[in-house]
Amino acid sequence: MELNRVYLDNAATTPVKPEILDSMLDFYKEGYGNPSSIHSFGREVKSHIDIARENVANLLNASAKEIYFTGGGSEADNWAIKGIALRYMNQDKHIITTEIEHHAVLDTCKYLEKNHGFKVTYLKIKENGIIDIEEFKSAITKDTILTSIMFANNEIGTIQPIKEIGAICRENNIVFHTDAVQAVGNVHIDVKDMNIDMLSLSGHKIYAPKGVGALYIRNGIRLDNLIHGGGQERKKRAGTENVAGIVALGKACEIANKGLDEHISKLTALRDDLISRIQAVIPHTIVTGDLEKRLPSIASFCFKFIEGEALLLSLDLVGIAGSSGSACTSGSLDPSHVLMALGLTHEVAHGSLRLSLSDFTTKEEIDYVVEKLPPIVERLRNMSPLYEDFLKGEK
Amino acid sequence: MELNRVYLDNAATTPVKPEILDSMLDFYKEGYGNPSSIHSFGREVKSHIDIARENVANLLNASAKEIYFTGGGSEADNWAIKGIALRYMNQDKHIITTEIEHHAVLDTCKYLEKNHGFKVTYLKIKENGIIDIEEFKSAITKDTILTSIMFANNEIGTIQPIKEIGAICRENNIVFHTDAVQAVGNVHIDVKDMNIDMLSLSGHKIYAPKGVGALYIRNGIRLDNLIHGGGQERKKRAGTENVAGIVALGKACEIANKGLDEHISKLTALRDDLISRIQAVIPHTIVTGDLEKRLPSIASFCFKFIEGEALLLSLDLVGIAGSSGSACTSGSLDPSHVLMALGLTHEVAHGSLRLSLSDFTTKEEIDYVVEKLPPIVERLRNMSPLYEDFLKGEK
Repeated sequence: MELNRVYLDNAATTPVKPEILDSMLDFYKEGYGNPSSIHSFGREVKSHIDIARENVANLLNASAKEIYFTGGGSEADNWAIKGIALRYMNQDKHIITTEIEHHAVLDTCKYLEKNHGFKVTYLKIKENGIIDIEEFKSAITKDTILTSIMFANNEIGTIQPIKEIGAICRENNIVFHTDAVQAVGNVHIDVKDMNIDMLSLSGHKIYAPKGVGALYIRNGIRLDNLIHGGGQERKKRAGTENVAGIVALGKACEIANKGLDEHISKLTALRDDLISRIQAVIPHTIVTGDLEKRLPSIASFCFKFIEGEALLLSLDLVGIAGSSGSACTSGSLDPSHVLMALGLTHEVAHGSLRLSLSDFTTKEEIDYVVEKLPPIVERLRNMSPLYEDFLKGEK
Repeated sequence: MELNRVYLDNAATTPVKPEILDSMLDFYKEGYGNPSSIHSFGREVKSHIDIARENVANLLNASAKEIYFTGGGSEADNWAIKGIALRYMNQDKHIITTEIEHHAVLDTCKYLEKNHGFKVTYLKIKENGIIDIEEFKSAITKDTILTSIMFANNEIGTIQPIKEIGAICRENNIVFHTDAVQAVGNVHIDVKDMNIDMLSLSGHKIYAPKGVGALYIRNGIRLDNLIHGGGQERKKRAGTENVAGIVALGKACEIANKGLDEHISKLTALRDDLISRIQAVIPHTIVTGDLEKRLPSIASFCFKFIEGEALLLSLDLVGIAGSSGSACTSGSLDPSHVLMALGLTHEVAHGSLRLSLSDFTTKEEIDYVVEKLPPIVERLRNMSPLYEDFLKGEK
């Protein structure tokens, strides 16, 4: 079987669903008014933003007035963390996060440490990619103002015990932010039940376009603005609204909400099929991260003795798009900080492959990968001095 | 003559030009890859961002590597000002700006004053809406790290003496930022000749969509990131690129660059025709801001004895979209800070009307406004107690 192109890099970005694109287009054509304008061009547009806000809120079990649109997930993460930190910087200055956060969280924390005198605890993870809840409890001090722990990891897909973390934060009067960019639309999220105070999400991971996201801010949480200016987003996030993007994000959340159970069961089956068949046919394979507490959308491997970039390029030649580490850190020669945090060696971490699924992924595509991947790994291993040394050692 | 709808609120937002929309669409359909990904889906997209960056740079006489894409003009303003302020906050803390900046600049400065101990000088403007360059020179102290003065005002269209300001800043080793959101595409800008260190621009004021903008940062200027995280925009602005928006902004700059002289002469003629005919037929009219040093796209008036919001709603009923103050401050009952800075009374400032033109504006539309506006003003005046008092006083 030959397939033209198999796109399994949906954790980097998803295609835009046709019905979502359709929902946007009018806001480039007729509906171009500025929603802050009081004439009919503006008023017509405003109501569509309100509908989108409702749809985002519904997916999280939040209220519409707790949803603030941003330019993407990274802005939402930066806003949540800096917004709390800079507001309380003259009081307490301790933040808790993990070693495996997305760089939008990690680099923001490092900036606050380096330039603004904050103290940040980076929690380690266990071998399965999940934090130790006791270690988290021990990290809390009287100066802790903020915990930022991702809902699910972008490289290995592991899901953190968010509800437990939320309860502990609430008990200790610590603001709890979670980067849920990968989780939204792939798992059930209930910000009320999970005691989440702030949650970041992004459009282009759930079939809406790039350049739009949102921050959920629980009613009552106060933080500094990241972007000051006009009165948009109830004076909390200035800038003329990205109307088409917001409408698309609302539509994406509406679609995700309606089909979530089906989406989860479909992708879980495909993911498990992919993981078990790859493990069965390619020796010296490590599946990274917990097998159960994991997003339905992410399968992640390390193939010993090979180099991930060569693997990606070889897969690309047969039309398969995957990733090694995350797209946001590509171009770097360092192995992924997430894989290193799992306790893997540099050599093993370099042989990583993430295959991430979407609603568009088919059984035929999984079959195609299972057919094409093993000979590529074998060929690369046959060229590898590491593998040669290993084989000598086995004799 | 009856026209269906006359849109003269282009300073709030322009429609998206059809050729610009066309340039974007493929990046929602086939070209959906993440430009940071190394597979072919990603690589195909990346080159289009590079082309867009060249096009933005060309319009400003900058280098492509000095252009950083953002989520809009407000983000660019916030980044420029906070980026310098927070970087140097442990050294010097004086900023110079004007009373008539956009709120993205004003509110950022107020935040830095209130929360981070900065001292900000807000320069007054003269009756014509332009700063006094001597007053600017006198405001400079040894602690001044940043000047942020808008290229052209969003309400009254007046153009500041940017080249002089730039030269003075350069001489005094002060970073010079200009909010050029209204100016870009409407006047000639040369960042080198004008000694501009940072310049903000926005897509949706120049026929690209909302949700994308850029900050020009002169090579050598160092500032803190506003959005930390992934390696995008040469590690200075994290977040997956809004590819379609960026491509559209590049296209918009390319179009603006090609047709700038023609655009300026066409709009200047329409604007002057509009202003002189309105002044001729409506008594007690003030044209706000300098008549010469003004954007070709903005005509702005105050009609004594009436209330701007009633005027806008009446215009809306005959299909004319204009604005009173700026869209970003609508919903507020306070009169515009710009009009107050001109020295107008509350009563006069409340009767403001901005009509802002675009490439799509026609002579027929101007004629239509000149036909419809005078009787509306007259009707509103006849209902106005202020006008009644005035007439009594005249007797």
